[in-house]
Order: sequence, then C-alpha cells, then structure tokens
Amino acid sequence: MKVRTPIKVRYQETDQMGVVYHANYLVWFEIGRTAFIEELGFKYQDMEQDGIVSPVVDAHMYFKQPIRYGEDAYVETWIEEYDGLRTTYGYQIIGENEKVAVTGTSKHVVVKKDSFRPVSLRRSFPDWHEAYTNAMKEG
Amino acid sequence: MKVRTPIKVRYQETDQMGVVYHANYLVWFEIGRTAFIEELGFKYQDMEQDGIVSPVVDAHMYFKQPIRYGEDAYVETWIEEYDGLRTTYGYQIIGENEKVAVTGTSKHVVVKKDSFRPVSLRRSFPDWHEAYTNAMKEG
Amino acid sequence: MKVRTPIKVRYQETDQMGVVYHANYLVWFEIGRTAFIEELGFKYQDMEQDGIVSPVVDAHMYFKQPIRYGEDAYVETWIEEYDGLRTTYGYQIIGENEKVAVTGTSKHVVVKKDSFRPVSLRRSFPDWHEAYTNAMKEG
Amino acid sequence: MKVRTPIKVRYQETDQMGVVYHANYLVWFEIGRTAFIEELGFKYQDMEQDGIVSPVVDAHMYFKQPIRYGEDAYVETWIEEYDGLRTTYGYQIIGENEKVAVTGTSKHVVVKKDSFRPVSLRRSFPDWHEAYTNAMKEG
Repeated sequence: MKVRTPIKVRYQETDQMGVVYHANYLVWFEIGRTAFIEELGFKYQDMEQDGIVSPVVDAHMYFKQPIRYGEDAYVETWIEEYDGLRTTYGYQIIGENEKVAVTGTSKHVVVKKDSFRPVSLRRSFPDWHEAYTNAMKEG
Repeated sequence: MKVRTPIKVRYQETDQMGVVYHANYLVWFEIGRTAFIEELGFKYQDMEQDGIVSPVVDAHMYFKQPIRYGEDAYVETWIEEYDGLRTTYGYQIIGENEKVAVTGTSKHVVVKKDSFRPVSLRRSFPDWHEAYTNAMKEG
Repeated sequence: MKVRTPIKVRYQETDQMGVVYHANYLVWFEIGRTAFIEELGFKYQDMEQDGIVSPVVDAHMYFKQPIRYGEDAYVETWIEEYDGLRTTYGYQIIGENEKVAVTGTSKHVVVKKDSFRPVSLRRSFPDWHEAYTNAMKEG
Repeated sequence: MKVRTPIKVRYQETDQMGVVYHANYLVWFEIGRTAFIEELGFKYQDMEQDGIVSPVVDAHMYFKQPIRYGEDAYVETWIEEYDGLRTTYGYQIIGENEKVAVTGTSKHVVVKKDSFRPVSLRRSFPDWHEAYTNAMKEG
C-alpha cells in the first residue's frame, strides 16, 4: 500500500537559494505519514488521547532535485518495515513531471507521553498491529 | 526597562525574496519576551510547571526594512502596558547600522493550561506582578 | 469576494501548550492570500518572474480561540482595502463548529526585487489592478 | 577541529509532545555548520555573493533523547569527510548534563545558483579547500 498526498508549496518554505529549504521535507514526510495512517482508518490524535506518542528514532533523507514555489508536489508514503515495536516509513517526494525530488525513511516507536517508556504496538493496539502487518505485506 | 537581545539570522528563516520571512519576526518577538522575563528574574517554564500558560491575545507588526542573512540583528523588548491581567510587550527589531527593521506589540494573558480559563497575575503570581509593575514604571 | 481554503493542521505547527503556535497563523494568512490571488486568475510566481515581489507592510492579528491538532480548519480571505498601490487583505481563521479562531489583516505593496523600490500595481499590472478593484467592490 | 555552539530552545520549536519537534534539529545542524565555517574564517554569504550555493545531498539523523524547552543545549560540529567536491559534516546535539540527544551527518556540494551545476571547491575556492583539508586532518 502506497499513499500519495498532494503538497502545495508555501512561500514560507522557500529559502534565499530559491528552493524549498531542506528541513521542510521532514515536515512533508510527517504529512505523508499522517495521510497514510488515516488511509488505514486510524487517527494519530486518538492514540495521543490515550497518553501515547510516537517519536522518531532515526531519519534518512536523500535530496535529488530541488522543488520550487509554484511547482506541483506530492509525497508518497508506505511501510518499509514493521516488527510490532518499530515502524519504518518510506517516502518519496515527487515534483513536476514526476521527477523524484527527495527520498527517505523515518523509524518510529510508540511510548508513554509522561515517561517516554516504550509500548508494544502489537499488545497495546492490536487493531493498528493488524493493519500495519497487512499494509507491509501489500508492499 | 528595555532588554536588547542579539539574533543570529538562520538561513532557514530567509525566503526566496532573499530576506527574512515576515512570520519569523513574531518568533523573534518571543525570543525578546523570554529574555525580558529572564532579565526580571523569572522563567516562563516555571509558570508552565504550575499548570499556567500565557497565550497571545493580539499582535501588531510594522515592517519597515527587510533584514538579510548575515546581518547583525537585535530585538529590543519592553513593557508597553500592564494592568494585573494583561501584559502588552513592545518590540523593536534592529538591523545593521542601527536601522529599525520591524516594530510591534503583543498582548498576553495567563490562563490555566487545562481549561484556558483566565488567571489574575496580580493574585496568583504576586512577585511577577510587582516586577511587571516596576518594569512598566521604568518605561 | 471571499475565498475559503481548507487547512490541515500539521503536528509541526503545534507547540507544548497543545495548540497551534501563533506565528503559524501568519503563514496560514499567506496560504489564504495565495488562494485568493489564484481565484482571481493570477499566480504570484508569475509576478516574481517579472522581477517584482510583494512584501508585507504591516500585519494585525486577533487570537480568539486556540486551534488544536486534528481539528478541521479554514482560512477565509478577502480584500479589505485597495488603492492601486497598497492592498490590505482581511482574514478569518475558522475552526471546528464554525468557531472564529483568529482574525487579522495584512497590508502589501509591490516592489522591484533588486532594489525594493515601490511599483504601482495600477500602472505596471493593469489586469491585476482591474481584478482587485472589482474584487474589492464585491466586498 | 570540533566547534561547540550554544542553542537556546525557542518555544516555537516545541510541539504538543512537549519536546523539540524533530525537524528543528536539522536547522540546529545548519546553525552548527555556519558556526564551524566562521570558525575556519569564512562566511557562507560571501560564497553566495559569488553566485554559488551549497545544497544538501543527504542527511542522517539519530534521535536518542528528547530536548525540552528551558534546557541548555549545544550543537557540536566537525568535518566527517571531505574530498574536494563533497563535504560531510558530523553533528552531535548535547542537552542538559552532557546527555547526547541527537547525532547526525549532512553531505553538501557547491553548485552555481542559476543552474545548480556542480562546482569544484578545490579549484574554485582554493582557500576553503585548504582550510577544509586541514580541519578534517585535525579530526
């Protein structure tokens, strides 16, 4: 399963190089991740209301082509890896004429908001676990 | 009392116009406000640990000259008005050669974090109240 | 003429108060402004390709209710004032259940990108001038 | 050579998880990089005035501990690799009590601003080349 989400470049996201400032792509990854989760039928805010948050463990980004203000852009998101504890999302940012602008991954765990202690997605959120397992299989 | 705080322009804060993107000056106001509060001997985070936050009620900004990456910049902060409930901070952003780049104000209340219900600074934080009253008198 | 644009709150836009950080509403105003200009049939980037940029002269913001992650939000944009040189846009940010969260205005001029010298919209961009004059009349 | 730069956490940089939002660390890397370059005796803006910019090719980030508002933070920057064309900077973000909060790298090239065509640092900026070669040797 791969989810494609349109992004409208904000003027605020450009820098004086005349292109999107690179850290913003990490925010676009977040947008893709949110859309992916919603496509699975869940909402991240519901998890937070249970006192659980999902911090990033690591992130890798490969910048291939700049994206400019006014260009049509998309973020594509899928599950690269999932083991019941950690989820690695894969991303591809697409610009005009289907050019691949940025690729990357981010790995996440779920933890208690108060203590940042790890929680097993498999045990605590069995419906998420099932959906993630299936989404990964679909590739 | 007026507090002057140096700001080092971040590349991320520029936009494709080649100058600092205007919304960032509101963040610089926040930096000035924090420095002002610390100069009075307080820490905003101590207030938050008591379950109190201080949202903005209104903000006014006047953009006179752009600031560019590599320029020396400062934010100057003072209390424009204070009545025991609401604090209005005044700001001036200074660029190279003492040019005035941006001026503005922001008005704040203090509220309970859970309910966003207003709290009287005078009654709940008498030491803040005294310091603010004095800081305003000094002009 | 009033243009209504949906905004999906980004996690990155929240702060530790648990609501959207106030400076982001200025970015949402920019999103509304861009959508308004496109509704009139123009593109801001076309103007920039002619060496013209449109900096902000002043901005006023009134924060009435916080907006939270997961809420449906909109920005409504119209022309408050236009005189051939300066355009003042009006904005209203709407949250869940049609609550008015933020209101504000921003005044803009157009200048040459190289020199920041003012340019008359009326003389240099007569088609923009006509569209703006009409949009203002429609209220 | 390793350069240590203090960072004062901005309220704007926190998110509703109550910690610094992860994309901001990429901005802090930029702050460390700028300080490192200045420590070598150069200014990035001088390079840009020659029509040269230095985009990021890839970035890797490892998030070990969250950083909170009010904490003392630092970014440490060094050269991990340099071959005359590409520079890889290494970074470490340090929080309170010397805890390592984030580590990472970013790889950069230099290109012409107009065309994004690669430029050899060795040939076009021999003084930068020498300083980078020495800084790398010092480890």
